[in-house]
Amino acid sequence: MNRLLQDLRIIEISAFVAGPLGGMTMAQMGADVIRIDPIGGGIDYARWPVTRDGASLYWAGLNKAKRSLALALDKPEGREIARALIAAPGPRGGILLTNLPPLRGLDFASLQAARQDLIMLRLVGNRDGSAAVDYTVNAASGFPLVTGVGGGPVNHVLPAWDVATGLYLATGLLAAERHRSRTGAGQEVVVALADVMLATVGNLGYIGDVQINGTARPAIGNDLYGSFGRDFATADGRRVIIIALTRRQWRAIGEATGLADRLAMIGPMMDVDLDTEAGRYEARDAIGALLGRWCVAHTLEEVRQAFTGTGVLWGPFQEFSQLVHDDARCSEVNPLFAAIDQPGIGRYLMPGLPLDFSAEPRLPPRPAPLLGEHTDIVLSEVLGLSSAEIGRLHNTGIVAGPRRR
Amino acid sequence: MNRLLQDLRIIEISAFVAGPLGGMTMAQMGADVIRIDPIGGGIDYARWPVTRDGASLYWAGLNKAKRSLALALDKPEGREIARALIAAPGPRGGILLTNLPPLRGLDFASLQAARQDLIMLRLVGNRDGSAAVDYTVNAASGFPLVTGVGGGPVNHVLPAWDVATGLYLATGLLAAERHRSRTGAGQEVVVALADVMLATVGNLGYIGDVQINGTARPAIGNDLYGSFGRDFATADGRRVIIIALTRRQWRAIGEATGLADRLAMIGPMMDVDLDTEAGRYEARDAIGALLGRWCVAHTLEEVRQAFTGTGVLWGPFQEFSQLVHDDARCSEVNPLFAAIDQPGIGRYLMPGLPLDFSAEPRLPPRPAPLLGEHTDIVLSEVLGLSSAEIGRLHNTGIVAGPRRR
Repeated sequence: MNRLLQDLRIIEISAFVAGPLGGMTMAQMGADVIRIDPIGGGIDYARWPVTRDGASLYWAGLNKAKRSLALALDKPEGREIARALIAAPGPRGGILLTNLPPLRGLDFASLQAARQDLIMLRLVGNRDGSAAVDYTVNAASGFPLVTGVGGGPVNHVLPAWDVATGLYLATGLLAAERHRSRTGAGQEVVVALADVMLATVGNLGYIGDVQINGTARPAIGNDLYGSFGRDFATADGRRVIIIALTRRQWRAIGEATGLADRLAMIGPMMDVDLDTEAGRYEARDAIGALLGRWCVAHTLEEVRQAFTGTGVLWGPFQEFSQLVHDDARCSEVNPLFAAIDQPGIGRYLMPGLPLDFSAEPRLPPRPAPLLGEHTDIVLSEVLGLSSAEIGRLHNTGIVAGPRRR
Repeated sequence: MNRLLQDLRIIEISAFVAGPLGGMTMAQMGADVIRIDPIGGGIDYARWPVTRDGASLYWAGLNKAKRSLALALDKPEGREIARALIAAPGPRGGILLTNLPPLRGLDFASLQAARQDLIMLRLVGNRDGSAAVDYTVNAASGFPLVTGVGGGPVNHVLPAWDVATGLYLATGLLAAERHRSRTGAGQEVVVALADVMLATVGNLGYIGDVQINGTARPAIGNDLYGSFGRDFATADGRRVIIIALTRRQWRAIGEATGLADRLAMIGPMMDVDLDTEAGRYEARDAIGALLGRWCVAHTLEEVRQAFTGTGVLWGPFQEFSQLVHDDARCSEVNPLFAAIDQPGIGRYLMPGLPLDFSAEPRLPPRPAPLLGEHTDIVLSEVLGLSSAEIGRLHNTGIVAGPRRR
């Protein structure tokens, strides 16, 4: 958290990962991000992982530092309130971030009629508006069929396309707001999840590989493509990854393991130059044979002692529980984290924004809201509604207040 | 490409994915991004995939639309030129994006002494400055040990942490520049690759899962965690993914396959409510048994015909070559793409930025520069050096011009 964007208010109507992450990134830089959900919660309100009581740790994780308004978006009066919040006057407002299909009266043209300098960030699955999610986009990308040892697709577990898309939304929002602050003009910014995948496949060279070389990289397990890197077992049943992208990293492996002389024999043996990435890739199985024997004769702790301070690029594989329990980076030793009470869930370690701004102090992370926690205060603050008016909206089921599970 | 940021100039001294992607994102919004590399190229200049001649498709992909300056950063006079470029006066300049260890005279304090409102984006591996790359950060994250069917780590092939970090850099740059334009103050913005991983693991609920529930999600192959989704074989040897996150998507599967009645039998049989995500997850193997038999009796084309227009959320797995050859989204039908001549490589399909800004027309992607292609023009334009001075810098090996392979 910091206060860099405290002069911005963003209305978010979204669900799942990308939209909420885009909004949360703004909220963690101080923007007043008001997430509007249907009364009872959106389609991501119970997404796993959940607590034993069914409270979503995922929802809490992706909506930190926002305010929450529960609103009957299926009713005209509910949509009218959403429109009024989005189009409320003042330089801080007039920004909508959404990944839901346009609701009547909440499309760009209608909103622009209500506020001429509106900025609307709109996330879609495919550019033509058809549905796509991380799972389907990933299947199409080519990556699952070269993940693992081949023979069938292996899906990633990290929703990487969603995460990237959420950050493109944050980037696009800031670029559009910059434009508005200079010209007075709003605009619609559209990003398709599928296009994020396609652009990334192209950026990493895989489209060119097919079109220029007529080939594509194979599935090679955990081997690093085009240089040396792979995983090894240790004497105590752990696994580590060891990498040599640069010549310095390569030399460091030989020195730290005492295998420099033996590793040097691989060059003439395989007829490659081990000081090049291509040479190390060509000789990866021979390198792996030597390093594998060394690793499996040492415990993880012995590997750590041998490599620490030597310039070897390596690390242990960790389960989620090992990351949380054993890795000091995942603790309050790291200023990224603080233990925070999340209403409805409990106290646990929450990350802030992984950006340190020297001009703005880092503040502790703020928890996610309860669903509807800020319904009344937002209606009063932003729309100037009286308590009597707000009471009527509650009584007629147009809005709802905080809901504890 | 568009011209949204055409009033910004960014000096980039970086390598690999995250830093270059951060700079390229700015360049594709029109900023003048000048990448400075050592003469002969940086450590990523030959990164795979490469052409048969050894030209890096990866380097070309991650440096599109930038200008390139080849400079002897290992010599004091080279570093002095870099400093002058970074600190050159005017509102458009004074922005450095880097992931290299600080070079003498190019640390934040020295640069700020040369230009008080300097913005420096600095990417590090770990927060303490120690090295970390996507491979080591990923090993620590917990994800590889729950990818695939378990029994050992499976590394992702997409460098997802690098991609996310590159986009955090873009976000941080725009936020810092917004702050400068309002207050006149520059700042240093630091992001650690490891912190991007840690924040993401937390955002997705996996730290809470360990700390609150005392558990962590298992490796479940291609099954979707907490709802229904997995891959199936078709009659013609392809594989498809089928997903049901929402009730509507679940109902659509039954209708499109004609299996609604049989699928409905699974609810009482397994004693779960199939209209809930948790119920579908609990019954995933039974659902898979029915859907698997249906899929393997149909070709991919028959599956496509059965599902198109029905609301079923699905897609085929594609190899990179199938993505490029068979998927219309990966062609010039998609405004994201244009076939562009990349000097030193050839003509192939290049993606632009996956953000459509309605206020700025989309321009065709621009290729990556040749290494050193803009050395002379940048020295002349930004520093006002004469041809004689530039000639001397070439002759003394301080700068180099375009290099064709």
